[in-house]
Amino acid sequence: MITFFPGPSKVYDRISEYLQDAFQEGVLSISHRSTAFNELSRRAIEATKAKLHIPDDYTLMYTSSSSEGWEIVAQSLIREKSLHLYSGSFGERGFQYTNYLHEGALPYVLDVNEAIPVQDLPVDDSTELIACVQNETSNGTQTSVDTIRALRDAYPQALISVDATSAMAGIATDYTAADIWHASVQKCFGMPAGLGLLVCSPRAVAKAEEIGEKRHYNSLLTILKNIEKWQTNTTPNVLGIYLLMRVMETAPDIAEVDAQLKRRAAQLYAMAEQLPHYQPLVTNHAVRSQTVVTVKTDATRLAATKDAAKAEGLLLGNGYGEWKDSTFRIANFPALLDSEVAQLVDFLTAYANRPA
Amino acid sequence: MITFFPGPSKVYDRISEYLQDAFQEGVLSISHRSTAFNELSRRAIEATKAKLHIPDDYTLMYTSSSSEGWEIVAQSLIREKSLHLYSGSFGERGFQYTNYLHEGALPYVLDVNEAIPVQDLPVDDSTELIACVQNETSNGTQTSVDTIRALRDAYPQALISVDATSAMAGIATDYTAADIWHASVQKCFGMPAGLGLLVCSPRAVAKAEEIGEKRHYNSLLTILKNIEKWQTNTTPNVLGIYLLMRVMETAPDIAEVDAQLKRRAAQLYAMAEQLPHYQPLVTNHAVRSQTVVTVKTDATRLAATKDAAKAEGLLLGNGYGEWKDSTFRIANFPALLDSEVAQLVDFLTAYANRPA
Repeated sequence: MITFFPGPSKVYDRISEYLQDAFQEGVLSISHRSTAFNELSRRAIEATKAKLHIPDDYTLMYTSSSSEGWEIVAQSLIREKSLHLYSGSFGERGFQYTNYLHEGALPYVLDVNEAIPVQDLPVDDSTELIACVQNETSNGTQTSVDTIRALRDAYPQALISVDATSAMAGIATDYTAADIWHASVQKCFGMPAGLGLLVCSPRAVAKAEEIGEKRHYNSLLTILKNIEKWQTNTTPNVLGIYLLMRVMETAPDIAEVDAQLKRRAAQLYAMAEQLPHYQPLVTNHAVRSQTVVTVKTDATRLAATKDAAKAEGLLLGNGYGEWKDSTFRIANFPALLDSEVAQLVDFLTAYANRPA
Repeated sequence: MITFFPGPSKVYDRISEYLQDAFQEGVLSISHRSTAFNELSRRAIEATKAKLHIPDDYTLMYTSSSSEGWEIVAQSLIREKSLHLYSGSFGERGFQYTNYLHEGALPYVLDVNEAIPVQDLPVDDSTELIACVQNETSNGTQTSVDTIRALRDAYPQALISVDATSAMAGIATDYTAADIWHASVQKCFGMPAGLGLLVCSPRAVAKAEEIGEKRHYNSLLTILKNIEKWQTNTTPNVLGIYLLMRVMETAPDIAEVDAQLKRRAAQLYAMAEQLPHYQPLVTNHAVRSQTVVTVKTDATRLAATKDAAKAEGLLLGNGYGEWKDSTFRIANFPALLDSEVAQLVDFLTAYANRPA
């Protein structure tokens, strides 16, 4: 079965070999306070920063999931007021997690085809942080790096926080365009679930120090103090960090990955636009995701399509939230082979065009 | 190298096979909202409850680590006042995490050879929770199940919370003697790090509902709502849950494991008592750990012993905290073979008794 489910998703075939290596090398038993761990953690972080072009002065840290990333940002980087821009379920969840901790968190809901109106946002001098979603996994929308950069330019007093869950390691981005980026490895990293990543700018680190929040086991200042020694606040998923090291040390440069995904996304959208009875959910090209392609159809056809695909060994992602009964999703993640994407395109084209 | 480091520790040899199976079976890519995940999560929980004799009406949940377990207990099960009984670094850390959130958390520090004076504790009707450590990994002390039961009997209004990090799946216990038990799988479960477990009694669940705390992504009520469907609040370590299922489905009954560990602990303590220049740190048999044996010696001999052991392929655990420079620790966890423990005993006996 080839899974196009957008996370947990297809893992790289070479993960099989890395798992055996981890066992053979004794990695599963090393102490997270040992020099052996420090060394593999350093290599994982350095390879990830190099391949993704994360600036030297940005800090890369481990979390247990992107949900923990939201919580850490809300806990340690906001005193009262933040603005949350989103069109889908995961952006909404990030807002809600923040709102539980700070009543001053403000939602700003976008239509799936609406770009962020950068100049017209309800932001004032007291807005400490603006959160957006680089790639909304639930509906396949995307915030471009130009828009993220424009947010930073328009509101220089605020930290810009980006939920990059289904984008990091798939889409090339300019990390200097924002202050916080958080993601999970079960999407574009092609790895098993159980590890999240958090990237912070020097400005974000300075803000954490200014706020001084240290009340939680996962307070950002605690994580920062440990990661200086390549370590973690709690016993981490050592195997996950080892797999990250292996995957990122062998990964192509992000520019190459990005080009491949964009080419395949163009192919998938062109297909969806040409098929009878199906269309891309997102019609505005400016906010279309490159990594999660969402296709709309009627409820009866939706169920039949998913069943027929499954019978061919192709697992389509279900729709999510309000789009549950009218869309399916196609992960266009780096671990998927071009031939697998081509096989899906062939199947869907034949299936949709077959005579009644 | 045979590692006697008390966590992350030696994993079961069969983990190698399970890792390959997980890859082959496509487990690494399944959605945590799929029926396939629900089924493996159900099996993992049912096998763990069966082998460890966790009562049917107690709820078993996943966390990312035992540190998260402390935080969840502090967040969701305490309004103001709790008492924390400990003699070592991890018990102290549990107190500190709670104290960050509640000024009403009170420490009660025990000597390493002191049993908990159950009848003489500073507990009153406003004490909502009493925390103790079943097995303190830092110094090799243990709270017996009789003492835990006595705490519950003496203070029936309080929840009893047990840090069972280096004990669960190693030591047989009566889970009805307390309300909360939390642990990690990189100790007695013989698994790679990256998964924690939390067990709650019906009383603890009722208290969580009464308090109604829902402000965090890992609030206990949120976890409980998900685990009813065998699911999790965030994307979990699916591979870890799969390994838990495989390990626990093939594990012997806890009574059998407990008997094996007690026999080996007796052997290790007898050795330490007989060796010249070495002695067990914990001399009071009533509070001696069965799973982490801590041996005291002078600083020079300590370094030499660790080096000589390493040269023989035996990795001793370092001392921890205040015992860092005067003790080494020997994990006596189920994944270690009797022959490996015997090898260590032979080495230490020969090493300590060799002519000057």
